[in-house]
Amino acid sequence: MIHSEKYKNKNVLITGGLGFLGSNLAHRLVELDANVAIMDALLPLYGGNLFNVEDIKEKTAVNISDLRDEASVNHLVEGKDYIFHIAAQTSHVDSMIEPFTDIDINCRGNMIFLEACRKYNQKVKIIYAGTRGQYGRLEYTPVDEKHKMEPVDIYGVNKMAAEHYHFLYHRIHGIKATSLRINNTYGPRHQMKHGKYGILNWFIRLALDGGTIKVYGEGNQLRDYNYVDDVAEAFLLAGASDGAYGQAFNLGSGTPVKFIDLVKKVLMAAGSGKYEKVPWPKERADIEVGDYIADYGKFQELTGWTPKVSLDSGLASTVEYYKKYKEKYW
Amino acid sequence: MIHSEKYKNKNVLITGGLGFLGSNLAHRLVELDANVAIMDALLPLYGGNLFNVEDIKEKTAVNISDLRDEASVNHLVEGKDYIFHIAAQTSHVDSMIEPFTDIDINCRGNMIFLEACRKYNQKVKIIYAGTRGQYGRLEYTPVDEKHKMEPVDIYGVNKMAAEHYHFLYHRIHGIKATSLRINNTYGPRHQMKHGKYGILNWFIRLALDGGTIKVYGEGNQLRDYNYVDDVAEAFLLAGASDGAYGQAFNLGSGTPVKFIDLVKKVLMAAGSGKYEKVPWPKERADIEVGDYIADYGKFQELTGWTPKVSLDSGLASTVEYYKKYKEKYW
Repeated sequence: MIHSEKYKNKNVLITGGLGFLGSNLAHRLVELDANVAIMDALLPLYGGNLFNVEDIKEKTAVNISDLRDEASVNHLVEGKDYIFHIAAQTSHVDSMIEPFTDIDINCRGNMIFLEACRKYNQKVKIIYAGTRGQYGRLEYTPVDEKHKMEPVDIYGVNKMAAEHYHFLYHRIHGIKATSLRINNTYGPRHQMKHGKYGILNWFIRLALDGGTIKVYGEGNQLRDYNYVDDVAEAFLLAGASDGAYGQAFNLGSGTPVKFIDLVKKVLMAAGSGKYEKVPWPKERADIEVGDYIADYGKFQELTGWTPKVSLDSGLASTVEYYKKYKEKYW
Repeated sequence: MIHSEKYKNKNVLITGGLGFLGSNLAHRLVELDANVAIMDALLPLYGGNLFNVEDIKEKTAVNISDLRDEASVNHLVEGKDYIFHIAAQTSHVDSMIEPFTDIDINCRGNMIFLEACRKYNQKVKIIYAGTRGQYGRLEYTPVDEKHKMEPVDIYGVNKMAAEHYHFLYHRIHGIKATSLRINNTYGPRHQMKHGKYGILNWFIRLALDGGTIKVYGEGNQLRDYNYVDDVAEAFLLAGASDGAYGQAFNLGSGTPVKFIDLVKKVLMAAGSGKYEKVPWPKERADIEVGDYIADYGKFQELTGWTPKVSLDSGLASTVEYYKKYKEKYW
């Protein structure tokens, strides 16, 4: 499937558009000649970073506001053809420490967003960023979309609830919505100040700093990593596929890797750093899900999408990016 | 399984204790010599009614406060052995019209409650009132607990999210929690001012008033009704069963009945009223789930519970109650 003409001159809003996935999407949409609006709250320690769109700032309209800012959301959704809805609280650990913040953003904020669409833009198409965290511990791998959802943290529960909100609004109010349940994702434009989300990016920082990566336990759990360009491409394809609306889809790599091997690859790509094995800390063990391998066959069948960037190549590009722009992220 | 000694002299809190199920539970717990505290917000048009505990008011401690009142909840959970946690927004239709209220009570309110338990009473045992609404449209009947949850309204999504919160707090913070996914329930002490929850009770009022019951469509959908005494007994058994904690259970009647036959039985029991068939209104059709039959085998196996009150006998008792106390409910 080819989406290249679908976004030309279209009005597109990206919530969380200064963050990791959002800003990479913004770059692609600018290339496709879309009219790109970005909404981001720049919450401290979240993923937003103005530098992420520095090179396209003349071609995007950036609005600093929070998903919970009803007036702002009401205004921003109006007249948009597509909304890539990525803004969220995304830390598993923080959701257990500050559950009210997670509920406020991921439940109430999503409802503010959907009510805004219902009132001011019922014709919009929404591409919602779901998460692998909705599944929790897997009963079987690779996990498909029929797998039961039993999240192991408040973040996963609320992202799941919000995905349900989207599909209810799709069915009852006719607002087109699709959800991509995102895998672990890595690459340029991720925040690099802490390891609360996107652990692989954090490891890249540790390695580049010549530090020590702590591997919990033996590191034999399997993980499934996607390079951010592949994920951005999947979002574009989902938005452009009429058949995607009303449904959720997994993303995945097709090539799971042992956690310990991932760490070794990071050290190799960075050319510095080392690792040590340590026991699992309780707050991580509590929300650890074990092996995670995704079956993305349903999405592939609909759109033809398949990840194109290998882990080695993706890590090389990522390391190169952060070496170049280190001072903007460290 | 016999629970009769389990509650003697135990400190028990019932949230939503002035409402339908909560007040019927309160009566049973008073009989069992428990120290019964009741928390209820008496929100207008919700289920709470002081008359529901009029005859046991000397034996219960009633506290009027809202689940979202953090200070009150923090105080009330302290020192309790068991909490029957029933307070909620429970209207399917209202949850679609006022989704923020539903999120505020059923997501944020439940988190206030669980955080209170985590901080002030980690040893408490919680019996949470889940709902059949968590399942949505059934892929197979009778529905067991493994059936996927895809609620058709915001109420169902948020009650499901809150059940997940309970099990997360069970697993991570060691707070014992079990959930009974309640079926349609009818009987004495239900609010009778509108038909937004507990449609069967509303029909009883219409019939007693000599009015006309509207049956949407042909009324051939199957429903599964439990008499409130059977449900209260199930809650007592769940609380007393160590094996119940950490798990969810369906309740059910074992004898599903066609909606139209239910209506005829109501008219017969009331000795007045009539019915007419009308087309489905949109707001009801949107959230209608079709046939609903529950498999309560898992709960029966654990506790021996089985419903004891037949529909005919339950309807007769219910009609008798409301004839006697009509002025307290109409």
